[in-house]
Amino acid sequence: MTFRRRLYLTLEPTEKGGIPERIFEILLIVIIVLNIVAIVLESIRSLEQEYIELFDNFEKFSVAFFTLEYVCRIYSIVENPKYQNPFYGRMRYASTTMALVDLLAFLPFYLTFLPLDLRFIRIFRLMALFRMFKITRYMQAMIIFKSVIRERREQLILSFIFIIFILIIISFFMYLAERDAQPDKFGSIPEAMWWGMATLTTVGYGDAVPVTTLGKVLGGLFAISGVAFLALPAGILSSGFFELLHNPEAKKHTCPHCGKDFHE
Amino acid sequence: MTFRRRLYLTLEPTEKGGIPERIFEILLIVIIVLNIVAIVLESIRSLEQEYIELFDNFEKFSVAFFTLEYVCRIYSIVENPKYQNPFYGRMRYASTTMALVDLLAFLPFYLTFLPLDLRFIRIFRLMALFRMFKITRYMQAMIIFKSVIRERREQLILSFIFIIFILIIISFFMYLAERDAQPDKFGSIPEAMWWGMATLTTVGYGDAVPVTTLGKVLGGLFAISGVAFLALPAGILSSGFFELLHNPEAKKHTCPHCGKDFHE
Amino acid sequence: MTFRRRLYLTLEPTEKGGIPERIFEILLIVIIVLNIVAIVLESIRSLEQEYIELFDNFEKFSVAFFTLEYVCRIYSIVENPKYQNPFYGRMRYASTTMALVDLLAFLPFYLTFLPLDLRFIRIFRLMALFRMFKITRYMQAMIIFKSVIRERREQLILSFIFIIFILIIISFFMYLAERDAQPDKFGSIPEAMWWGMATLTTVGYGDAVPVTTLGKVLGGLFAISGVAFLALPAGILSSGFFELLHNPEAKKHTCPHCGKDFHE
Amino acid sequence: MTFRRRLYLTLEPTEKGGIPERIFEILLIVIIVLNIVAIVLESIRSLEQEYIELFDNFEKFSVAFFTLEYVCRIYSIVENPKYQNPFYGRMRYASTTMALVDLLAFLPFYLTFLPLDLRFIRIFRLMALFRMFKITRYMQAMIIFKSVIRERREQLILSFIFIIFILIIISFFMYLAERDAQPDKFGSIPEAMWWGMATLTTVGYGDAVPVTTLGKVLGGLFAISGVAFLALPAGILSSGFFELLHNPEAKKHTCPHCGKDFHE
Repeated sequence: MTFRRRLYLTLEPTEKGGIPERIFEILLIVIIVLNIVAIVLESIRSLEQEYIELFDNFEKFSVAFFTLEYVCRIYSIVENPKYQNPFYGRMRYASTTMALVDLLAFLPFYLTFLPLDLRFIRIFRLMALFRMFKITRYMQAMIIFKSVIRERREQLILSFIFIIFILIIISFFMYLAERDAQPDKFGSIPEAMWWGMATLTTVGYGDAVPVTTLGKVLGGLFAISGVAFLALPAGILSSGFFELLHNPEAKKHTCPHCGKDFHE
Repeated sequence: MTFRRRLYLTLEPTEKGGIPERIFEILLIVIIVLNIVAIVLESIRSLEQEYIELFDNFEKFSVAFFTLEYVCRIYSIVENPKYQNPFYGRMRYASTTMALVDLLAFLPFYLTFLPLDLRFIRIFRLMALFRMFKITRYMQAMIIFKSVIRERREQLILSFIFIIFILIIISFFMYLAERDAQPDKFGSIPEAMWWGMATLTTVGYGDAVPVTTLGKVLGGLFAISGVAFLALPAGILSSGFFELLHNPEAKKHTCPHCGKDFHE
Repeated sequence: MTFRRRLYLTLEPTEKGGIPERIFEILLIVIIVLNIVAIVLESIRSLEQEYIELFDNFEKFSVAFFTLEYVCRIYSIVENPKYQNPFYGRMRYASTTMALVDLLAFLPFYLTFLPLDLRFIRIFRLMALFRMFKITRYMQAMIIFKSVIRERREQLILSFIFIIFILIIISFFMYLAERDAQPDKFGSIPEAMWWGMATLTTVGYGDAVPVTTLGKVLGGLFAISGVAFLALPAGILSSGFFELLHNPEAKKHTCPHCGKDFHE
Repeated sequence: MTFRRRLYLTLEPTEKGGIPERIFEILLIVIIVLNIVAIVLESIRSLEQEYIELFDNFEKFSVAFFTLEYVCRIYSIVENPKYQNPFYGRMRYASTTMALVDLLAFLPFYLTFLPLDLRFIRIFRLMALFRMFKITRYMQAMIIFKSVIRERREQLILSFIFIIFILIIISFFMYLAERDAQPDKFGSIPEAMWWGMATLTTVGYGDAVPVTTLGKVLGGLFAISGVAFLALPAGILSSGFFELLHNPEAKKHTCPHCGKDFHE
């Protein structure tokens, strides 16, 4: 087995990977998780100032690691029959979503030599988190999630439009009911929508609350109705999961032994 | 093809509509969405004062557009076999829900010459939002939604009555427990119902909260029980979706042995 | 048809009731709803004082109506083959849950001549609300609700025990984490349970919130886990509804035409 | 029947247990529940000081009871064919989860003679609560719960990772939007995560709320999207329950025409 082939098999995890593949997979997850932790901790000013060197060194190490990994992937990908052409195959691979995510995880670092706001660019390092979903074990669950969402796309979008529609309507009425009593919180429809959002999602921060009797009556009715609408996306996703996971036979409608359709 | 027939086909979107139909559909959606945005933005006092002319001109344009569209629809509807009588057909079409919604989206504007509160009438322009549901693409999802709600109407109404019933009961007890400690927030059953509504829907604004030990014990028990009742409408809708989307066979009820229908 | 038989048919609503039965049913619902409204409005001090005579007269009228109705029911129930014995049949009917509810709706009024707290006794008038569930239209939905809850009783009780168990555990940890920082809100496990209840049910009043870092980390983990546990009763009820409503055949497993079991 | 055999049958509840077994089971439950109540009440300082002797005596009694019960179990377990070897059988039984839970419920008491913090050790007495799950009656519901969670483990873990992932992303954006306006509440990503957790779970304490327009717009969008993600674990568990409880046939996969199993 050539070095390139061995490299390819190590980088592309499969169900029946051996020990070196498992070690690389775990190493990659550890570095990705540490990157996320670093981004979160760096935002704490006191920690950032004390451990500035540690954070800097870890970032340099991570970028070097991700760069090397990316180069190795581009180099070895031609072992994959789908991308076997040395130039066009590599180009096609480099333009897949996953390869672009890989690239964005380290490329912004090299842009910091340019006069740009470093902090905003750092968000791209969060891209690394997406890579975790490539982990073999969770591939199947991911596929199920994607299928459910894709199959129910239309109904989910319609639910979302419904919610926005209801949000505007109820905010309009609360604006009419409360604008005189609380001009700072219900003084315009967008301001009333902050209350409406907190109520429909049942978050209920409590920073904007109706105080007039009319406002409370309307607010109460809207909140109770909101519960039913919240049940819509839950019902859609729930039935989506059910079909995909438990009724694969329901789609076939044919017996695999005798070939007859059940509804003949 | 006559001009009237061409007009009719443009205004009534069908699955296999050509390019002019698509352009008109998109134009209509854009104008409707801009109307909603205008209503929302106009409520912000600073924006309203600065762009008063822009808002006024856009409203005049919208009303002109909706009026023209309505006249064209009434004129061309006789091409539809269901409404082919020149007078009675048009009357019947004009009295359908969708045509009335179309009418209410612009008619109130002409009433502003009368000494009425302009701002309240503006609510009718929100009617335009309903028109979005006529958009062909989402028709099927809408039909499913309607069917689920219609089929489960009785159970949803019963859930609603249950919730109102429980709301009154728990508010009565909280009123007894808290009226002495907090006469401003639990001084009457309707006031206690504001707390009850916020708790049963799990919104929990926090503006009215029991402070006595008895109130907290009762409030806690009510909140935990409320979670189970909230699951009722969710369960009803969820199972409704499931049946409609995945078990069309369950409705046929044919025996796979003898092929007869169960309900004969 | 005797007067007693006519009385019986009017009082016991059936699916195919005529116009007098419908009128009586509607009248009964109106009086019950007005009673609930009266109890709620009477709790508002200003209304109670102003309309004290109206409330008193309405209460007297209601009690007279309910008493008369109860007497008529007891008198005519012997028309029902189940209760045809003039004495024992009436006794057995009077001891059914529904007849006791009917009795409790007016009996406490006669007890007000005794030196007891009138206000507390008034709660029994809420019993009248239960009677609404006898309305024919909602009978079937009620039966479904009851069946779902009965069939899933064990799992619902177990969910409830789980929730109480988790509530005690998380409150214990929050008590350890926050008792020094907020002795007034997390100074004992029962006090911490008020926070725990508000968090697990996602009500989140915000009157008791962890302030220490440890408390916030624990509180966040508990809240996220709580979401999954909240899904338990919803899932149980949802699947219960589904089975009962859509899979009645799943229970029979036999074809009604050929009598064969599907699993033979 | 030997004394050891009688002891074994009393301690290990079975479906068809006689009266002594039932009495012992109820006694055990009462003592466990009283232990939980004692732990909760002891945390209330005023009660602890007043009834210090009662609490102490009850703890001594409980520990004595649990110790005796544990010794009896270890002594009599050899009657169980699975653990019949006098030494190795007892060792294997002592290392089962349930036996360790039993041990932890009283062992920490004996450690209080050592110079350790008594209060922290007391947490182990909560272990007693776990023992309640051994109660025979609820065994079947427990098995269903466990099966659903085990079968959906991967999807539930993926949901959890998704939620953590989304929590970090939205907290990052809220930190960027609000850190200048509210450095005490959104001054770092971990601090913003407290808001994010309260929003995604719809708890919404209201102690940290965005105040800038950008923060409110982002916060509103995040909250609405969060509702859909909350529906994921609910949908997973709901469909899990359904399959296990109502579709035992779906697992058999036999063709009604030829009777063969689909997975042969």
